[in-house]
Amino acid sequence: MTFQICAPDRALAADLQHRIDNKTKPLGALGRLEPLALQLGLIQQTLSPELRQPHIMVFAGDHGAARAGISAFPQDVTWQMVENFLAGGAAINVFSRQMGLGLTVIDCGVNHEFGQRPGLINAKLGPGTANYLDAPAMSAEQADAALARGRELAHTLAANGCNVVGFGEMGIGNTAAASLLTHCLIGDAGGADLVTVTGRGTGLDDAGLVRKRELLGQALARGGRPTDPRAALAEYGGFEIAVMAGAMLGAAEKRMTLLIDGFIVTSALLVAHAIAPAILDYCVFAHRSKEPGHTAQLKHFGVDPLMELDLRLGEGTGAALAFPLLQAAANFLNEMASFDSAGVSDKNA
Amino acid sequence: MTFQICAPDRALAADLQHRIDNKTKPLGALGRLEPLALQLGLIQQTLSPELRQPHIMVFAGDHGAARAGISAFPQDVTWQMVENFLAGGAAINVFSRQMGLGLTVIDCGVNHEFGQRPGLINAKLGPGTANYLDAPAMSAEQADAALARGRELAHTLAANGCNVVGFGEMGIGNTAAASLLTHCLIGDAGGADLVTVTGRGTGLDDAGLVRKRELLGQALARGGRPTDPRAALAEYGGFEIAVMAGAMLGAAEKRMTLLIDGFIVTSALLVAHAIAPAILDYCVFAHRSKEPGHTAQLKHFGVDPLMELDLRLGEGTGAALAFPLLQAAANFLNEMASFDSAGVSDKNA
Repeated sequence: MTFQICAPDRALAADLQHRIDNKTKPLGALGRLEPLALQLGLIQQTLSPELRQPHIMVFAGDHGAARAGISAFPQDVTWQMVENFLAGGAAINVFSRQMGLGLTVIDCGVNHEFGQRPGLINAKLGPGTANYLDAPAMSAEQADAALARGRELAHTLAANGCNVVGFGEMGIGNTAAASLLTHCLIGDAGGADLVTVTGRGTGLDDAGLVRKRELLGQALARGGRPTDPRAALAEYGGFEIAVMAGAMLGAAEKRMTLLIDGFIVTSALLVAHAIAPAILDYCVFAHRSKEPGHTAQLKHFGVDPLMELDLRLGEGTGAALAFPLLQAAANFLNEMASFDSAGVSDKNA
Repeated sequence: MTFQICAPDRALAADLQHRIDNKTKPLGALGRLEPLALQLGLIQQTLSPELRQPHIMVFAGDHGAARAGISAFPQDVTWQMVENFLAGGAAINVFSRQMGLGLTVIDCGVNHEFGQRPGLINAKLGPGTANYLDAPAMSAEQADAALARGRELAHTLAANGCNVVGFGEMGIGNTAAASLLTHCLIGDAGGADLVTVTGRGTGLDDAGLVRKRELLGQALARGGRPTDPRAALAEYGGFEIAVMAGAMLGAAEKRMTLLIDGFIVTSALLVAHAIAPAILDYCVFAHRSKEPGHTAQLKHFGVDPLMELDLRLGEGTGAALAFPLLQAAANFLNEMASFDSAGVSDKNA
């Protein structure tokens, strides 16, 4: 399976910048909204980008290693939180409603049978991954199948008229998988040694953090440090991370704008980026997480997220909260008057 | 004139924190939204705070010193931008529409006659302040009248059902006035020496910045460094800053939530805070400005704004862009399920 992602043509960049610079404001005075407007214009190849049917996709899955003590919460919380999403009571429900975002939950491999449920897509690859302390988390075939399912989900979303998607996740134990993937795909030389990229997740105490680092060290001693993205996914990945990586690639193929949440979502992007580097041009980074591994990821990509609110919840909450800024970037470009049209004197005129 | 501002009763704090902690999320995982929800609950003295009829007030005024070369733009831009506000074409119009915020522009002393116009309140104290290089910017009577008018405007807004207001401004030359006020009310010992707190405003180049600092030094040599807030206002203030300070005080008297924008708005808050320190409990700081004087102001108050987007436009744009975060804080508190209600296992259960 290959993914066809081309970097956006930059021929429009000068016209977009001219349009931005002629709005009734000092040059550059809208700060980070200005390059964001430029990026949206380039992604959509228009001087008037529009965010259509914005959507949050929350990918859920369980991790075999979760039972070994890598998380502060029991594994059952994964399916319980999926039920909470379906009932509309989680933070991502609240923020998606507020921001006018559609919300779809994807069961990529939760250790629970939900049956047919409105708002839930069954993309299950199994009842959770294998415990990477004992064996690879998934087979190479499962990793490929997960990428393909994710791609298909994004293509369906695009076919339904959506052109901007925020990514979120739920899976007890998935900061540990994200730490391992980050270590594999960035490496010590990129500042992603295992200790640095392994954090407290949902709230481990000091002793819990020491234990998590020990366990992940044992996992690495068993499975090594694959640097190929599919091999790293198979060794340590979660099903939700794998399907999400496929959805990111599929979304970029359809020239959608991707709103990237925190540490775990960015670990899926590491996988996607290793497969198709041009994906980065389609990504807007929403929120800087306190998870120390996120810093290494952001440095690897050379990016700085829009917000830093000390969120560490996942679910795509950072992406949802940053959506109004993306909308504001499109809106000022489309709606603000120019110096000429408003009869305002330009600088030192 | 005295302002009656009481700090919110903190008796509800424990119940609010309990409600926050029992939402379906790891403890503290909503980061800065959590103390924000607590603050809203305390301001409104309820476990279910609501943001009603949110509003942006933009205060406009001209500065006599603007003609001396303290700004990159000519003074006419003040009235031209007010016309742009009234026509709906400025950034604050775009963002207010997007966020569902009412918008009122207050002519506090623009050097232009607008006549009766929808969306514009005439609170003119004169056709711009006097040039503080030659004489005090306004009389003590004008400063008091400006505070009284601002207070009345906020009381009217509250009477119309609004309980949250964002503050913005327009006035060519008003970063210079803000620098002088910041220097007066914080002083060198607080990190607010004149050079540090004098920045590029709307975009002065290096030579322009040197000239601005020289001129403000001359103003201080003439008018001294009054540390009384009303005296500092009279010496160097703008009419828009004075009316805004009064509106802030009036809004806090009515227990509204105040959304504080950038450097110039925070200079008005310095005045208001020196008059009634309890106002700080009602303030949410929206955006960290690149203007170096803002850093000294924020340190003085011991606060850290919610966002840092390199905005330097004023108009209340930072306040408008931060409004969804304030709404998100109220919404998660009111709408998220608790561990019990959602049947989700709490940590290590």
